[in-house]
Amino acid sequence: MKTHTETLTVRTSDREQMLDITSEVVAVLDRSNIRDGLLIVHIPHTTAGVTINENADPDVVHDILAALEKAVPWQQGFYQHCEGNSAAHVKSSMMGCSQTLLVKAGRLTLGTWQGVWFCEFDGPRTRQAVVQVMGE
Amino acid sequence: MKTHTETLTVRTSDREQMLDITSEVVAVLDRSNIRDGLLIVHIPHTTAGVTINENADPDVVHDILAALEKAVPWQQGFYQHCEGNSAAHVKSSMMGCSQTLLVKAGRLTLGTWQGVWFCEFDGPRTRQAVVQVMGE
Amino acid sequence: MKTHTETLTVRTSDREQMLDITSEVVAVLDRSNIRDGLLIVHIPHTTAGVTINENADPDVVHDILAALEKAVPWQQGFYQHCEGNSAAHVKSSMMGCSQTLLVKAGRLTLGTWQGVWFCEFDGPRTRQAVVQVMGE
Repeated sequence: MKTHTETLTVRTSDREQMLDITSEVVAVLDRSNIRDGLLIVHIPHTTAGVTINENADPDVVHDILAALEKAVPWQQGFYQHCEGNSAAHVKSSMMGCSQTLLVKAGRLTLGTWQGVWFCEFDGPRTRQAVVQVMGE
Repeated sequence: MKTHTETLTVRTSDREQMLDITSEVVAVLDRSNIRDGLLIVHIPHTTAGVTINENADPDVVHDILAALEKAVPWQQGFYQHCEGNSAAHVKSSMMGCSQTLLVKAGRLTLGTWQGVWFCEFDGPRTRQAVVQVMGE
Repeated sequence: MKTHTETLTVRTSDREQMLDITSEVVAVLDRSNIRDGLLIVHIPHTTAGVTINENADPDVVHDILAALEKAVPWQQGFYQHCEGNSAAHVKSSMMGCSQTLLVKAGRLTLGTWQGVWFCEFDGPRTRQAVVQVMGE
């Protein structure tokens, strides 16, 4: 079994933003020369996350961010965390800080409309995404 | 290390529905002849997902769907996506499009009450679930 | 490829509580002698979960629990499940019952502020967390 790991740099430009990192992730897979196994994207931050969703119509990610903001508003009277970014921490846990994808015959088994999205919830910042491929 | 992959077909009958696919997933594990490792269920769709939850009382999945609808209503004034199914995309990301389970001595380490649920958020449709077992 | 699995016991003292189990998880990794691969934490319960988030300021986990309670209240008129703990099931699926972490050079690739949190949503109870390390 082989393991191949790379760390990507992601620069965000807004407080809340979803960035399509699918092509960067696929490039790591290609460089790994692993044909069958899995690929994990891990975000080493507590106010960002990663999710899989549609990468055709940009309105979809707009609506995801808007619906998350409605469900978990930036300002709520009960927040105690002094940095004022508690909503970002909650959204990070809701989306998750890692995604596990499958690799078959050298390709991700993503569906037709699925892309890998870096989720910024407290930007703009320079962020990282660790991509690990495991298999043979 | 061995890898065994199968694609299941899931037919849903409602717009929102949770379907217990535990026995189909366990059948893939049995056919893999893998005794120790992990099993990943990946849903290649952006308006469906997969989660692990109780499979004893059917009221639990009713309440999960109802609570998700309350937190992320099907209609909200700020949605821009022209297909009108933005809530389904949000719920897909909230539940996640994959679940990673552990395999020990040829069995999933699911708890007593845990089952694997395919989550339909924009049905009815014919869907897929990719099941991959990795280990020895 | 080696697989090392241990089951941790987690005792919770409140109905809703987040417990930092990072050091216990790292101890399992140390005992595994695995240097490169992945580590999966699986919670075999349907009213608890596991998430990765900040372990510096305890106000963060307070705010996560409060925001989840606001988004998915303990009491809602539409709940049908007779045990009265439907919100706990929903939150379990929202946070997820497993987390996949990366192992590189014998260490988790967690970010500076990231810790592993056991999420109790219907305690107090004695719970379990299954930790599996896979790699070489």
